[in-house]
Amino acid sequence: MSATAAHGQAQPEASGIPKSHHDLLEAPFAVLATVGPQGRPQLSTVCFLASTDGTIELSVNETRQKAKNMMANSKVSLHIADPANSSRYLELRGHATVQPDDAYAFADRLGSKYGDLDLRRMDHPGEQRTVVTVRVDRARTVDMRQPGEVGRALRP
Amino acid sequence: MSATAAHGQAQPEASGIPKSHHDLLEAPFAVLATVGPQGRPQLSTVCFLASTDGTIELSVNETRQKAKNMMANSKVSLHIADPANSSRYLELRGHATVQPDDAYAFADRLGSKYGDLDLRRMDHPGEQRTVVTVRVDRARTVDMRQPGEVGRALRP
Repeated sequence: MSATAAHGQAQPEASGIPKSHHDLLEAPFAVLATVGPQGRPQLSTVCFLASTDGTIELSVNETRQKAKNMMANSKVSLHIADPANSSRYLELRGHATVQPDDAYAFADRLGSKYGDLDLRRMDHPGEQRTVVTVRVDRARTVDMRQPGEVGRALRP
Repeated sequence: MSATAAHGQAQPEASGIPKSHHDLLEAPFAVLATVGPQGRPQLSTVCFLASTDGTIELSVNETRQKAKNMMANSKVSLHIADPANSSRYLELRGHATVQPDDAYAFADRLGSKYGDLDLRRMDHPGEQRTVVTVRVDRARTVDMRQPGEVGRALRP
């Protein structure tokens, strides 16, 4: 693993996501960026489950534009802000794979993070729910309060 | 102006940004999505000044990757979440123009929104500060708490 610093010091970590920001993997929401057919970025707030090894899982209805975008172009980025301090955040860039979640197995696992949220209620009959797995290949941590550490980049 | 609904009802508005979400234009931060040279989305938290006619202004150091991305590809998106309720947000898609802000005239105007933040402190000698003007051509409002209104799209 080699580390590069955008601004400030970079610190290589054993896992793909710096330990200093592992707490953010428990945050309720992330902002997902996908790229649309004309090369335009699209942004959505999403629920997610994260593991510290650099895998983020999302539950997306296949009819949504973001699902179509990811099926055509796997390049995505996720932004997770500290709920207690929005100037501290994590940007995770990676590649998404979209697979069927026929029996809502993943959706139910995700829903348990949100007080037993039932994602079936979000779907119309005949719509396909999918599990989106993002493999993170770059993690960037930022704390805008710290002048010496505007940005930190890790490229595993 | 024609309106299209991604999910739920769309309501055309006189200005480019729906009145229901004008309060978010006063929020402290937005997430900016730019597209990098390999077509990868990049995300950053940014300070901003917004007007209800659909113009968002940012102050960016020209050496930053997001500035380089916007100079090569003007397509951007901004995500502004309600600070009191992160399931309510506004997505603004548009085109960015990047221009010099030699005398920090815009930077100082922006800084006054943040308790007289001095953006000179963010720059090293010889670095160019720019003003980024985003013309919004699509506004999408979302309130994830309202099942009948998962998404709303306005295309002026």
